[in-house]
Amino acid sequence: MTSSSISSKGKLYLVPAPLDFGCDTQTPLTEVLPLGTLQIAAKLQHWVCENAKSTRAYLKRVGEICPLVQPLQSLNIQELPREVHKKGDHPGSVGASFDAKPLLAAAMSGFDVGLVSEAGMPAIADPGSSMARAAHDLGITVVPLVGPISLMLALAASGLNGQNFAFVGYLPSDAVLLTKRIRELELLAQKTGQTQIFIETPYRNTALLQVLINQLQPNTRLAVSCGLTLSDTQSLSNKISVWRQQSHNLSLRLPSVFAIG
Amino acid sequence: MTSSSISSKGKLYLVPAPLDFGCDTQTPLTEVLPLGTLQIAAKLQHWVCENAKSTRAYLKRVGEICPLVQPLQSLNIQELPREVHKKGDHPGSVGASFDAKPLLAAAMSGFDVGLVSEAGMPAIADPGSSMARAAHDLGITVVPLVGPISLMLALAASGLNGQNFAFVGYLPSDAVLLTKRIRELELLAQKTGQTQIFIETPYRNTALLQVLINQLQPNTRLAVSCGLTLSDTQSLSNKISVWRQQSHNLSLRLPSVFAIG
Repeated sequence: MTSSSISSKGKLYLVPAPLDFGCDTQTPLTEVLPLGTLQIAAKLQHWVCENAKSTRAYLKRVGEICPLVQPLQSLNIQELPREVHKKGDHPGSVGASFDAKPLLAAAMSGFDVGLVSEAGMPAIADPGSSMARAAHDLGITVVPLVGPISLMLALAASGLNGQNFAFVGYLPSDAVLLTKRIRELELLAQKTGQTQIFIETPYRNTALLQVLINQLQPNTRLAVSCGLTLSDTQSLSNKISVWRQQSHNLSLRLPSVFAIG
Repeated sequence: MTSSSISSKGKLYLVPAPLDFGCDTQTPLTEVLPLGTLQIAAKLQHWVCENAKSTRAYLKRVGEICPLVQPLQSLNIQELPREVHKKGDHPGSVGASFDAKPLLAAAMSGFDVGLVSEAGMPAIADPGSSMARAAHDLGITVVPLVGPISLMLALAASGLNGQNFAFVGYLPSDAVLLTKRIRELELLAQKTGQTQIFIETPYRNTALLQVLINQLQPNTRLAVSCGLTLSDTQSLSNKISVWRQQSHNLSLRLPSVFAIG
């Protein structure tokens, strides 16, 4: 993990986090992260994250399973700039011009660096892609580690097409634009067979589900997964005609993933 | 895991497998699967899979970490029909009309059932979605477990947009159709900012990479990950103009994932 020689660079590890961020109950880390991921995380001295406080809380949980290589408070934890984690740092986003290379100074000096987001895999439905691009540009090896990815757990559970699918992020909050976007995604799914996956901020989940049930075609399949990997996780998948007839008791206050096809 | 009462149904667990299927070296399961996943897999007596022989080989490895609830040879292992695992069982596919409900008879009798594919997550870039649909139709709870998903490891490592992305499966093998499809995917990525992810059978990977380098625009970013989670895994990501200048030593004989954006 440390520098073996001045000339060798460290690696950038993409370290997944559990999906219980902001939830009332915590999932034991051994249920959602391989020991291999926990062992690597425990050895890293340099971190880049969205929020240092929640990263420390996560690493404290890691340390309870695999002792950390050095005390939590002495780890080097840097945050991505606020603009980046609010607006994204993928190509074409507001934060795309952000130069992440300085955050990789430790890797250039031979130390491995961990990138972590608040929940799930960094750079998927979350910022972090600027770090991977910077690493590739600097000739730093990028190693993604295994952990929970809510979008894929939801897709597998949905019974929808997993051989052609798209994740399109958040839908518009404006009612007119939302209706237009839902129609657009449904047509795309019908025409191409491509499952369309999207998310919403938890407090809007109930309203979004109702709009979907009202506006999609009876024969369209809608799948919703709530609280994935939590003890009270639920996945439902039905044609809209069935959603209209059956009541459900989904915990939509939990992080949820929607998919149609 | 067993029937607690006649009226209660078992669950359908979606059990991920390691990504080393068909590779020369094996990844220790604890590096890619959480203990929680291994513990549930070890307790299941009823399985549905693509191939019973490789499922037994996988469960033998599971049993070396978490003792199996009953001897390997006495587990009930059923295979999806050959047509389904060759042609897919997602809506719109040749195998879409396949009725998976009989494969869930054990779950209807109160036993949990595991669905597993040859590598990675069942029903993602693999058959299995008919099992999830059948479970939902029968009121059987579907629980996806955490494990490695090559498409997402590759996407995170790519530095491409992980807030809007699509997986489009295999590209055409016919040279004219391949060129047309690559152009189509590149235009889509340029126009919408949506990362386009695809795969190829390993023996065609080298040829595909060369076609991509030749035909994509200089400013398009191309990412390739080979042998994800294996000890010799590699991820490269660069603009096409850089791919044209730099040599690489990618192990394209290993399972690989391509992404452009």
